[in-house]
Amino acid sequence: MWASAKILSAKLGVHGDGGGLGWYDRKPFPGLYRNAGPAWSDPNLRELTSQLESKLFFAHVRASTGAPNIFVNCHPFRCDSWLFMHNGQIGQFDKVKRALEQKLDDDSYQMRQGDTDSELIFALLCTNGLKRNPVQAIEATLDQILVHMRHAEVKAPFRATFAVADGKNIWAIRWSNDAHAPSLYQRQHCDHLLLASEPLDDIEENWREVPPNSIVHAQLNADGQIQMSQSFLFEKVA
Amino acid sequence: MWASAKILSAKLGVHGDGGGLGWYDRKPFPGLYRNAGPAWSDPNLRELTSQLESKLFFAHVRASTGAPNIFVNCHPFRCDSWLFMHNGQIGQFDKVKRALEQKLDDDSYQMRQGDTDSELIFALLCTNGLKRNPVQAIEATLDQILVHMRHAEVKAPFRATFAVADGKNIWAIRWSNDAHAPSLYQRQHCDHLLLASEPLDDIEENWREVPPNSIVHAQLNADGQIQMSQSFLFEKVA
Amino acid sequence: MWASAKILSAKLGVHGDGGGLGWYDRKPFPGLYRNAGPAWSDPNLRELTSQLESKLFFAHVRASTGAPNIFVNCHPFRCDSWLFMHNGQIGQFDKVKRALEQKLDDDSYQMRQGDTDSELIFALLCTNGLKRNPVQAIEATLDQILVHMRHAEVKAPFRATFAVADGKNIWAIRWSNDAHAPSLYQRQHCDHLLLASEPLDDIEENWREVPPNSIVHAQLNADGQIQMSQSFLFEKVA
Amino acid sequence: MWASAKILSAKLGVHGDGGGLGWYDRKPFPGLYRNAGPAWSDPNLRELTSQLESKLFFAHVRASTGAPNIFVNCHPFRCDSWLFMHNGQIGQFDKVKRALEQKLDDDSYQMRQGDTDSELIFALLCTNGLKRNPVQAIEATLDQILVHMRHAEVKAPFRATFAVADGKNIWAIRWSNDAHAPSLYQRQHCDHLLLASEPLDDIEENWREVPPNSIVHAQLNADGQIQMSQSFLFEKVA
Repeated sequence: MWASAKILSAKLGVHGDGGGLGWYDRKPFPGLYRNAGPAWSDPNLRELTSQLESKLFFAHVRASTGAPNIFVNCHPFRCDSWLFMHNGQIGQFDKVKRALEQKLDDDSYQMRQGDTDSELIFALLCTNGLKRNPVQAIEATLDQILVHMRHAEVKAPFRATFAVADGKNIWAIRWSNDAHAPSLYQRQHCDHLLLASEPLDDIEENWREVPPNSIVHAQLNADGQIQMSQSFLFEKVA
Repeated sequence: MWASAKILSAKLGVHGDGGGLGWYDRKPFPGLYRNAGPAWSDPNLRELTSQLESKLFFAHVRASTGAPNIFVNCHPFRCDSWLFMHNGQIGQFDKVKRALEQKLDDDSYQMRQGDTDSELIFALLCTNGLKRNPVQAIEATLDQILVHMRHAEVKAPFRATFAVADGKNIWAIRWSNDAHAPSLYQRQHCDHLLLASEPLDDIEENWREVPPNSIVHAQLNADGQIQMSQSFLFEKVA
Repeated sequence: MWASAKILSAKLGVHGDGGGLGWYDRKPFPGLYRNAGPAWSDPNLRELTSQLESKLFFAHVRASTGAPNIFVNCHPFRCDSWLFMHNGQIGQFDKVKRALEQKLDDDSYQMRQGDTDSELIFALLCTNGLKRNPVQAIEATLDQILVHMRHAEVKAPFRATFAVADGKNIWAIRWSNDAHAPSLYQRQHCDHLLLASEPLDDIEENWREVPPNSIVHAQLNADGQIQMSQSFLFEKVA
Repeated sequence: MWASAKILSAKLGVHGDGGGLGWYDRKPFPGLYRNAGPAWSDPNLRELTSQLESKLFFAHVRASTGAPNIFVNCHPFRCDSWLFMHNGQIGQFDKVKRALEQKLDDDSYQMRQGDTDSELIFALLCTNGLKRNPVQAIEATLDQILVHMRHAEVKAPFRATFAVADGKNIWAIRWSNDAHAPSLYQRQHCDHLLLASEPLDDIEENWREVPPNSIVHAQLNADGQIQMSQSFLFEKVA
C-alpha cells in the first residue's frame, strides 16, 4: 500500500480557508470531500479519516489568496478519474484570468465550479492534454500562463507547486518563475510514499526536499512497488 | 449483504433541516457524517454515497421541531458502536427537558453534544441499559418519559418512531402515546432489508407497513442471513 | 417610508437553497446579507430583520435550477449602488453561458462571484448600460439572450421576472418567451409599495397581479410619495 | 457617541473558531450576529460592519477550548437586553459542568443554546442576579465556580476576562485564580471608549492595561459623557 498525504500548506501562516480530501478506494473515480471551514474544526473530516482507506489520497488545507471561502474553491479538484491540488498563486490573477479562460476547451470551461487560479490551472492542464501526456501538458500550461502574464505586464510571480494524479500515478511539481517556489518534501518509508508541502514531523532525516523547478513522478506498479523518477522543468519552461 | 436505509422523514412537509449518515464498514465503530444544511444540496453527501459501502447504514433527513439547525442536532447519534435516529417528538419538550436530563448517568450526560429531544431519548436509552438489554431499555425509557410528561401535565403527544443498532442488530420501533405513531415501513428483497419511515418507491407491494406500537428486531447471522422478529410494545408501556 | 419586499419564490416548490437581503439605509450603497442555507432556519436573518430599517429593501429565497448552494449564488446581487434579484431561468443555460460571458465588458466580467444565470443577466444588464438607461438595457439584454438561445437552438424557455433598483427607483419586470412568465404581484398600502412574486397574505383584494411581459417602474419622489408607471415589453423584445 | 470594541482574542494563537457581533441601535434589545466560521472570511460580517451604527457594541472572535464550532457557541451571548462575552476558560470544565448547571434557575437553564463554559458563566450570572446587582452577581458567580472546582479537585485555573452590558453600562472584568488573567486594555479617545483584550493598534501610549483582578465600570450619562470607575475584585473573591 502507498499513500500520498500532500497537505499543501505554507511554512508560515494560517490555513483556515477550507480543506479537502480526495481518495481512490473501491471505485474507478476518486471520492471528494471538501468543506469551506477550517479543517481543524471539521468533525466530518475527522470521521472520514477514521473510516476511509485508500492506496492514494490527496489532502489539502487552503489559505485563500483572494477567492471566497466556498467549497467549490477548495482543493482537490477532480476531472473524471484525475485529482489536482495546488500551492501557490498566479500573480495579479485578475489581469490574466479572462484571457486564460478563453483558452479553455468547452469541456474544461464547463467543468469549473469555482473562481480560483488553482482550478483554472487544472482546467488548462485538461485542455492541454493532461490525460494523454501529463508532463507535456504541464509544460505547455506553465508556458501558456507565463506568456499571458508577460503580455499583461504582470510583475508578480507565478508560483505553482502542485500535484496531479490518475489513481496509479502522481506527478508532483515544485516550480516558480521567481526564486521562491513553494516547498515540497518527500518521504519514503517501507512501501509508502508521502509528498508534502512541508514535513509532517520534526525528524529532519525523514524528509528530502524536492529541489525547485523539478517534477517528481511516482508510479504504482502491478507488484505494489512504487517506481520514482525525477527531472527538471526549467530547461523547457521559459 | 444487507442494508438499512431508514430515511426518517414524514409523509408531508419539507425535511431540509440537516441530514446525516451512519455506517458500519471496516472499523468496529460506525462512521458518522452529519451536515446542518438540506441533504438535497449537500455535495459531500452525494460523494460519500458514491464511495461508501456498508452492510448496515442509517440515513436521516431532519425536520426540526424547534432545536436549531446545527450539525450536533442532526441524526444519527452515536455512542461507542451504537447508532440511533428518531422520527417524532416529545410534546412540550421544554416542560420535561430539565427533569429528564437529571435522570441521565454521568456518561450519558456528557455524551450529548446538542439540544434535541431525540438525542436525549438516546442518552436515556444508554442510561437505562441499552447495551445490555435493548428491548428492556426501550420500554423503560418510554415509560420514564411518559411519567415525567404526566407529572408536568403535558397534553401534547409523545411520538417515537426510531431505530437503534449495534452493527449486527437493528431494533426499529414505531410507537406513540396517541393514535398517530409516525409511519414505519419495511421491505425485504433478496438478502437486503430496508426499514424506512416511508416507502422509497411507488410500488405498493414492495413495502409492508409496520403496525403502531410494535418493535422489529433484525439480526444479521453469521451465514449472512437476516433473522427478523416482531412484537408489540403497548402491553408493557403504559 | 416605502419598502419593496419582493420575495421571489414560485407558487410551488421549496425555496430552501439560500436567501438574501439587500437594503438601503444610512450609506449610499446598499448592505447585502446572503446565506446559502434555508432562510427559515437562519438565526442571523431573523436578527437582522428585527434590527434593520430601510426605505427600500430586496429579500429573496432561492430554489436552485442547478448552480450549487453557496452564498455567491444567492440573490440579491449588487453592483455599486444597484441591486438585482431574479426569478426564472435561462433554459439550457450551459448551451449559451460561454457565449454570453464573452459579451460582458471587463468590469462586469470581473464583478461576477458565482455561477448562476441570474448573476449573468445582471452582469449583461450592467454591460448594456443599466446605469444610464435601465429600460433600454433591459430590452437589449433580453434580446441579446434570446438571440444566443436561438443560435444555440435552445428550445427551453427563457423566463425572467426580476427587479433592479438604484436606491430611489425600482424596475420590476415580469417576462417570459413562453406563456409562463413567473408571477409578479404588487400591493400599495398608504405610502408603502410591495412587489412580490406571490401574495404575502391570503386577502385577494390586497394584491394586483402584474400582467406578463410588462415592466413596472416605481420612483420615490422628494416628498416621500411613490410615483408608479407601467408599460409593456413585448412590442420591443422579439 | 461611544463604542466598545472588545475583540476578545489572546495575544497568541489563531482565533478562527467563529465570531460574533452584538449591537445596540434603534431597538431596546441588542441585535446579534454570530457565525461559526472564521471572521476573516465572513462576507456578511464585513457587510454589517459597513452598514451598522451603534453607540455600544460587542465584537468577539473565538478560539475554542473544546466545544464544537457552531453558531450557538459563539459570543456574544444575549439575555433580554444584556450582552456577555468572555475570554478564558473554566479548567477541566467537564468535572464541574453538571453540578454548575444544576445551580441555574429554570429561566437561565432554558436560555442556553450551546455547550460552552462561557455561556454557562453568563447563565450563572443571570441566576445570581446580574440584572439587579451586576457587581454582586459577578462576585457570587466567580465564588460559586471556584467552590465547585475545589470540590471537584480541579487543579487547572479558572480564567475569566469578560464584559457584560445592558445598553447603557459596561462592566469589564479581568480576573483569574492564577497569575495569568487574560489581558484587558482600554483606550479613551474624545468621547469614545474602547475595551479590548489586546491593543488594536501598535501605538503603545494609546492603550492602558487594566490590572488583573479588577473590574471596570463604564456608564453612558444622559449628556453623552462616559463615566468610568475601577475597583478590585480580589478582596472579595477567594
